[in-house]
Amino acid sequence: MTAFGFSLLAQDGQARRGRLTTAHGKAETPAFMAVGTAATVKGLTPAQVASTGTQIVLGNTYHLMLRPTAERVAELGGLHRFMDWNGPILTDSGGYQVMSLAKLRKISDEGVAFHSHLDGARLMLSPERAVEIQQLLGSDITMVLDQCVRLPAAPAVLAGAMERSHRWAERCRRAFNPTLGHALFGILQGGDNIAMRHRAAAALTDLGFDGYALGGLAVGEPQEIMFKVVEETAPALPQDQPRYLMGVGKPSDLVGAVLRGIDMFDCVLPTRSGRTGQAFTARGSLNIRNARHRADPRPLDPECSCLTCARFSRAYLHHLTKAGEMLGPVLMTLHNLTFYQTLMARLRDAIAEGRAQDFAAAFAESQARGDLAPLA
Amino acid sequence: MTAFGFSLLAQDGQARRGRLTTAHGKAETPAFMAVGTAATVKGLTPAQVASTGTQIVLGNTYHLMLRPTAERVAELGGLHRFMDWNGPILTDSGGYQVMSLAKLRKISDEGVAFHSHLDGARLMLSPERAVEIQQLLGSDITMVLDQCVRLPAAPAVLAGAMERSHRWAERCRRAFNPTLGHALFGILQGGDNIAMRHRAAAALTDLGFDGYALGGLAVGEPQEIMFKVVEETAPALPQDQPRYLMGVGKPSDLVGAVLRGIDMFDCVLPTRSGRTGQAFTARGSLNIRNARHRADPRPLDPECSCLTCARFSRAYLHHLTKAGEMLGPVLMTLHNLTFYQTLMARLRDAIAEGRAQDFAAAFAESQARGDLAPLA
Repeated sequence: MTAFGFSLLAQDGQARRGRLTTAHGKAETPAFMAVGTAATVKGLTPAQVASTGTQIVLGNTYHLMLRPTAERVAELGGLHRFMDWNGPILTDSGGYQVMSLAKLRKISDEGVAFHSHLDGARLMLSPERAVEIQQLLGSDITMVLDQCVRLPAAPAVLAGAMERSHRWAERCRRAFNPTLGHALFGILQGGDNIAMRHRAAAALTDLGFDGYALGGLAVGEPQEIMFKVVEETAPALPQDQPRYLMGVGKPSDLVGAVLRGIDMFDCVLPTRSGRTGQAFTARGSLNIRNARHRADPRPLDPECSCLTCARFSRAYLHHLTKAGEMLGPVLMTLHNLTFYQTLMARLRDAIAEGRAQDFAAAFAESQARGDLAPLA
Repeated sequence: MTAFGFSLLAQDGQARRGRLTTAHGKAETPAFMAVGTAATVKGLTPAQVASTGTQIVLGNTYHLMLRPTAERVAELGGLHRFMDWNGPILTDSGGYQVMSLAKLRKISDEGVAFHSHLDGARLMLSPERAVEIQQLLGSDITMVLDQCVRLPAAPAVLAGAMERSHRWAERCRRAFNPTLGHALFGILQGGDNIAMRHRAAAALTDLGFDGYALGGLAVGEPQEIMFKVVEETAPALPQDQPRYLMGVGKPSDLVGAVLRGIDMFDCVLPTRSGRTGQAFTARGSLNIRNARHRADPRPLDPECSCLTCARFSRAYLHHLTKAGEMLGPVLMTLHNLTFYQTLMARLRDAIAEGRAQDFAAAFAESQARGDLAPLA
């Protein structure tokens, strides 16, 4: 087993081409992590996930701690064995979802007390417990517990959540049991306040982590605010460590954030949208439920190499979706993840070849062209 | 393209080992056809269906005529292209489902008038229309329209449905446009009345079809009644043509019917049960939702070679099913279809080697052993 590491292979402006090395192999960066909430990327077998170009997946601590529980997963050999994913896994800390999904939550310095949304059980997620759960799962990258705030928020609220997040980060740092190939990432809070983001960067880099995430974005703020925070914060982070923008985002968000120095992303958008009929294509997004697709023999995206686009028509996908057939979400998710992973692969190539800006401009132009014209 | 054909390769008692040849390739018999109701075997890609050992799939005329319509499928290149299944496809006539699913149906000699269960549209399924739809779909094996009766039924009711089915079979025969590699099968009615089954066999073989199906079974009668009808009827059918027992059945039904001379089967049981958590194994069936599986690291069936059994524990499948994750039905369906297809493959080998009775006895004994003992 090799040590956890991050190699910076090329740089083009602020954009970075790198490689993560973990206990479960490598992931090329910029990387998009497919979301595998409850130990499954919804609807796909691990081989299908890998076929999209996905190299690293994300698991959700909140969901897994409730069911089947971290102890159960550990008994069964850890999350990789449980879900049969042999590549790297990053787990979130559970903090974000405890605040959005759990009932009767109460936040104190100790942690978050809450009732399970499944059966009402009273539980506590403390910094120490968040780390323990992730280490029981066997996660390659453990995230510290943090307190996220919805934007817009008053400066005092932002500062309070940030300060508490720093105290929690320090406790996570102490609780984390170093294991070869496994990493602990810190999370910067501070909302849209650049000064606070700089304070967060200073506080967390002082503590010292294996990577740094920007939390508290993708919570409803305009894209230009998110870009500004990334642009101003990334340079305050160590050059030789990975940077992760949590919960982001749309294809244009990924491109813009990569240009501003981000290395890692996760988002439910390609998988969740796939289940509701939205497809991402080289020419923007479309909804396959729309009647204009019902007799269209063409693939979702003629530029895409996924199984869905290679073998199935829009008419077939429209039919599956209208008929409520499970294969619809499966094929749409396969396509959307492939679209995201192909975008990341092209970004990686563009950075290595020093043409990241040109790539971004061409991508934006292609997205703006709109979907294929109807057939005559 | 080759002509439609059936080769009898070996016989062991009444059990037959054969091979169907169609416009879309071969299927070894005895064959189990996976049910692909609405142009999809629910949840599985065609490659996953093929990985189970499935060689021929069944499509449902009733569902497809309502959505996306036979004309739409034909415009898009036919059902094989539409659903990307390049092997043989058999379609039912729609008769059975029009009687079980449609609203306000009215049966006359002309056909069945009914209202769509989707949007209430008034439609008519006549013998001529049933054949036209199946030929538009491009089905390799078209079934005649027949009138099925629930058992028990009075002799006059059985006889009336049978006589009408013969008139319809004759009209289907005339309406069918012979195409190289494509076949038309007749359907015997007559319920549990052996004399009527013999009349049906005589009437249909007089008309002359490419194969013969036993309809009106698997409608609630005890297994011994079904076996008796098969046993008495099969010898009245041509030796050199395939025999299809419609809508059957449980694993023990398949074994018993093969021993009595049946070559083809279809049933929703492996796919539908997979979606509700029931798994078929070498040691009988089990429900993965049961709490006793929640920490069990063993596969569903240690004797099974499917992806599900090779890579995933009962504990994981239990988790997926309890969490309502789509991958649960996908993996369970993959397993169940593999179990069915492996059973058929073993039956084929046993017949070829003259040990069909021994195989059946060993299979029944294994099924009766019950599920694996709990782990200590």
